[in-house]
Amino acid sequence: MRAVDIIIKKRDKLELTGDEIRYFVNGYTSGEITDYQAAAWAMAVLLNGMNDRETTDLTMAMAESGEILDLSDVTPMVVDKHSTGGVGDKTTLSVLPIVAACGLPCGKMSGRGLGFSGGTLDKLESIPGYRVNLSTAEFKDQLRRIGIVLTGQSADLAPADGKFYALRDVTGTVQSIPLIAASIMSKKIAGGANCIVLDVKVGHGAFMKNQDEARQLARAMRGIGELAGRKPRAVLSNMDQPLGFAVGNALELVEAIEILRGGGPADFREHVLRSVEEMLTISGAAPSNAAARQAALNVISNGSALEKLLQLVAAQGGDPDVIVHPERLPRASLIESVKAAQSGYISQINARVIGEAAVALGGGRARKSDQIDHAVGFIIPRKVGDKVEKGDVLFEVHANDPAKLAQARREGLSAFAFSPSPVDPLPLFFED
Amino acid sequence: MRAVDIIIKKRDKLELTGDEIRYFVNGYTSGEITDYQAAAWAMAVLLNGMNDRETTDLTMAMAESGEILDLSDVTPMVVDKHSTGGVGDKTTLSVLPIVAACGLPCGKMSGRGLGFSGGTLDKLESIPGYRVNLSTAEFKDQLRRIGIVLTGQSADLAPADGKFYALRDVTGTVQSIPLIAASIMSKKIAGGANCIVLDVKVGHGAFMKNQDEARQLARAMRGIGELAGRKPRAVLSNMDQPLGFAVGNALELVEAIEILRGGGPADFREHVLRSVEEMLTISGAAPSNAAARQAALNVISNGSALEKLLQLVAAQGGDPDVIVHPERLPRASLIESVKAAQSGYISQINARVIGEAAVALGGGRARKSDQIDHAVGFIIPRKVGDKVEKGDVLFEVHANDPAKLAQARREGLSAFAFSPSPVDPLPLFFED
Repeated sequence: MRAVDIIIKKRDKLELTGDEIRYFVNGYTSGEITDYQAAAWAMAVLLNGMNDRETTDLTMAMAESGEILDLSDVTPMVVDKHSTGGVGDKTTLSVLPIVAACGLPCGKMSGRGLGFSGGTLDKLESIPGYRVNLSTAEFKDQLRRIGIVLTGQSADLAPADGKFYALRDVTGTVQSIPLIAASIMSKKIAGGANCIVLDVKVGHGAFMKNQDEARQLARAMRGIGELAGRKPRAVLSNMDQPLGFAVGNALELVEAIEILRGGGPADFREHVLRSVEEMLTISGAAPSNAAARQAALNVISNGSALEKLLQLVAAQGGDPDVIVHPERLPRASLIESVKAAQSGYISQINARVIGEAAVALGGGRARKSDQIDHAVGFIIPRKVGDKVEKGDVLFEVHANDPAKLAQARREGLSAFAFSPSPVDPLPLFFED
Repeated sequence: MRAVDIIIKKRDKLELTGDEIRYFVNGYTSGEITDYQAAAWAMAVLLNGMNDRETTDLTMAMAESGEILDLSDVTPMVVDKHSTGGVGDKTTLSVLPIVAACGLPCGKMSGRGLGFSGGTLDKLESIPGYRVNLSTAEFKDQLRRIGIVLTGQSADLAPADGKFYALRDVTGTVQSIPLIAASIMSKKIAGGANCIVLDVKVGHGAFMKNQDEARQLARAMRGIGELAGRKPRAVLSNMDQPLGFAVGNALELVEAIEILRGGGPADFREHVLRSVEEMLTISGAAPSNAAARQAALNVISNGSALEKLLQLVAAQGGDPDVIVHPERLPRASLIESVKAAQSGYISQINARVIGEAAVALGGGRARKSDQIDHAVGFIIPRKVGDKVEKGDVLFEVHANDPAKLAQARREGLSAFAFSPSPVDPLPLFFED
């Protein structure tokens, strides 16, 4: 078998065999197949597609390129969730403690932000001392002990995916549904998940720009999950405007804590509860969505969900006191309230623009090696459909640099559009 | 400008601007743009195409990536020819001395064989001492002095093309009409040609497998030539069976010399005369095809074409005596005549099979670094349509290794097909 022949076959729109896909993935992982061959292949896949069988073979080959976590000695049912990424999406930070407090052990590996989309690991690292590099042994031990783990992707899991992803990022081959689906699912399968809840975000602030693309991705990931013998479920959620009010690492952590205290913005709270429902029902831990929601509300109101977060932070070396006293988290030196220059109904808060402005403030990375400023970001206590009067506060900018503050103010304002007549609020979820 | 954005634009089927194409070609040549980005881009071009304007911009960017030869102080009209490559195609070796003997100065840079297709340089190196690495100064001086040069591509000309070509070869991106057209034309333009005669080969033993593809390539190259202010002309010629009788480096040189002595196989002779007609008429050196052909026949019969070849060989350090006494050229130790096992009309002599068998004998390279055996190859004094009786000689194998001889005998026989009823001879040229 030769790499170039496999590239040519996909270039010519032919179906690749499982052996060919495994040969390519293994060869690329070991370095025998070069970056330039993998790049040509990825472009051929992007433009000519892959069927479900090929995509599943690709997923399994990437999952099997490293260790596959076996958690069966810790818990009989491993449930995982994945969001395709959005602006203000701090869902995991609230959902995991709730699910764990409901009695379903939940160990999750998360990623960092890239581009305009934030990452759970970066948000967690707002907590002084919090470790995101647990070993497999630490992962299993902690999951057994307290029923919750939230750490980084182990380099031993699906190493092929890491290598492919870095290459795709610089070769214009990110936007391929089979490649995105295989990347996500290979990590979930390598992480030992039996049940996988997929939150496919769609809109300005998501990688999938329209519902049609998002449905294709959801369908592809469900197809892989089923062919791979896992239990997948996918929901489509709106990412035209930021989720919740906070965008920025420490600001989002604070908002996630508010949910666990029974507060938080309505849209984000609903998103969290819906995610908990999916995780508890797919795993059989709750008999119905209504029962799952009730369980979630119970662990929030009795404080056990917040307690679970405190246990998590303590177990991973963080200072739990910042959870109890969020004012001790990194805080920007400059906070400015930006006011509406006109009255009207908000018709748009472009999540992509806000996400990119947050990156420019220092809250995200332009390059993988960039350092993050955990304190900066936006608080936007407004939603599409809200009526505002001239002079009302539209949003707060949290910055550590006057020039960046001024830029963020301009960019933040440019994300807004107004209508003189009433505007419907945006839906939270779309029909799958 | 960023390489990844240019890749994405072509991936999304958008037209690239001249600036974008120059940025990409220059960046790749200088090493700022990586092999993997160029590979992804090449695959996107292969699958999504380029229009004539983009292809011309690509050609000019590659031509301008190095020195552009200016021969205006040597000759007012520079005519060049290019064959897209075939099996037994030794046309340049006969045509150049004829054209030069007709009074049109002709300096040409040729390439090496790759895959099943032979290369003029390899054939020339059958001559002991012949140098194919002339400097630009030597090239111009020799062209001025004797009106004929036949050397290798200078590394200073179109370096971008050399780099792209090597990459395309291992990434499944060779078979793209815009990329092939730009590669050929960039070298011709960098070589200083005003008039360019393109021999586009089509059939089993060519890179273009059908007339439709060949016409597209011819059209693309003519389009570039015209947009670049050159005078292009293209002919389509048949490459289903080998051209002439000889396939193999020294064997082909001998056959090219036979033409200059007034002999040679009829099909190859006609191909040479047609090529001379095109070169003499496009450059204005002859008023009509008939006049050009008569001039060619004159310089053959009065010996001045052969004399021109002797001057060429002597000027480039080769031993001219091997031209006068071709039996002094490298000669294989084993020569076997292979006979027909059946009677009938020859319906196929698959040029691709013969070309690959010649490579396997050692006459070509599987890798660029392989050494060539100049002596080995085939003499196939048969053409499609010939009637043979059982026991007639079909072809000779020239080998230096008994095992390779046996393999070449088998492969040579497998190239033949027979019909019990008469078969039409193949056309030499196709309507463009």
